[in-house]
Amino acid sequence: MFVNNAIRNDLSTIKIGMANLFIQHTSASLTINENADPDVRRDMEVALNKIVPAQWTKDGTFRHTMEGEDDMPGHVKSSLMGPSLNIPLVHHLVCAPGIKKQTTYQIKNGRLALGTWQGIYLNEHRDQGGWGGGHTRNIVITLQGQS
Amino acid sequence: MFVNNAIRNDLSTIKIGMANLFIQHTSASLTINENADPDVRRDMEVALNKIVPAQWTKDGTFRHTMEGEDDMPGHVKSSLMGPSLNIPLVHHLVCAPGIKKQTTYQIKNGRLALGTWQGIYLNEHRDQGGWGGGHTRNIVITLQGQS
Amino acid sequence: MFVNNAIRNDLSTIKIGMANLFIQHTSASLTINENADPDVRRDMEVALNKIVPAQWTKDGTFRHTMEGEDDMPGHVKSSLMGPSLNIPLVHHLVCAPGIKKQTTYQIKNGRLALGTWQGIYLNEHRDQGGWGGGHTRNIVITLQGQS
Repeated sequence: MFVNNAIRNDLSTIKIGMANLFIQHTSASLTINENADPDVRRDMEVALNKIVPAQWTKDGTFRHTMEGEDDMPGHVKSSLMGPSLNIPLVHHLVCAPGIKKQTTYQIKNGRLALGTWQGIYLNEHRDQGGWGGGHTRNIVITLQGQS
Repeated sequence: MFVNNAIRNDLSTIKIGMANLFIQHTSASLTINENADPDVRRDMEVALNKIVPAQWTKDGTFRHTMEGEDDMPGHVKSSLMGPSLNIPLVHHLVCAPGIKKQTTYQIKNGRLALGTWQGIYLNEHRDQGGWGGGHTRNIVITLQGQS
Repeated sequence: MFVNNAIRNDLSTIKIGMANLFIQHTSASLTINENADPDVRRDMEVALNKIVPAQWTKDGTFRHTMEGEDDMPGHVKSSLMGPSLNIPLVHHLVCAPGIKKQTTYQIKNGRLALGTWQGIYLNEHRDQGGWGGGHTRNIVITLQGQS
């Protein structure tokens, strides 16, 4: 949502192309997932905590532990999800029935070609650092294409 | 293979650039892996099932379980692999000896700069939903570059 | 670092756009992570070895085992990290205080919009194959943008 707002004006000058979102951090990441049921966001975090347990900070697995038990797990999760996300910009989609309602808007502007259930996730992997610690996270948005 | 067929005609107008494949779903994904031994595809699936066990749907780990035991695991695997894949388009490769045979084709058209062993995987993470359930999966292919 | 050197001359012709790094292999990968403490690189490898244990080659989990115990684990890690990395090129960054020192350089040339702590990792997932075995790894670098 915040991404759509950030690029809305620029989308009026581009009809087809590519949007890149790039997060300039190593303990946060970007991904796309199901955007309807808030349980998915919660379950994604639970799953990542099982795949990369905070326990690995305490049991001697990790050496980079200065910033607490979510320090190194945050770095690993960041690379598993990735810092860079490319989403096509289209003004015309070969797509599901629901798309018809958006046609008027699409003729004027490009739009992110997200599927019906897809939403953009900014994953914060720190509890005390990053957003958890009141810091900001920078995302660089780049649009490339033609009108 | 199906990707190469889909973009073959467009490749004649582009000699260098970037192809983006974007899958518009949250329980399927795109990746690149070894394309010679079919066991790799089978083993990739086995590995993902171990990293994100279906058991997490039954033991109370996950709350988003409406569509069965591969519902939430499918979402996690989708983000681990990723929905968006960028592959360079080239007409000239600084590459291994085997490339020579393809030179004639390359002079006329751009081609995906895949390595000798690389193939594009469309990962279906659902057994009953998605392809497993007889549904289609949409991929948006975007080519950007110059002739 | 080696990437910055490889593209330095080309960056003088491009001020804003996108750099894509694509590794043409299926048991090596590219990611971005913390570039200051060398323990992070070591811990990333330890974490990946726990997420995809070499044990799966010995205990019958994997069938694709011809090239030794890091063969199939290398393929899985490669897809978890990914072969393709997009990094924005910018000549002007809305960014942290430390950026000021680089302004002169930025006016003349584009630069990779990496965050303060971010570095590019080439992950070698083989001990005996790949770099471990004295082989080379090819990366295709593509720059797209405008001056």
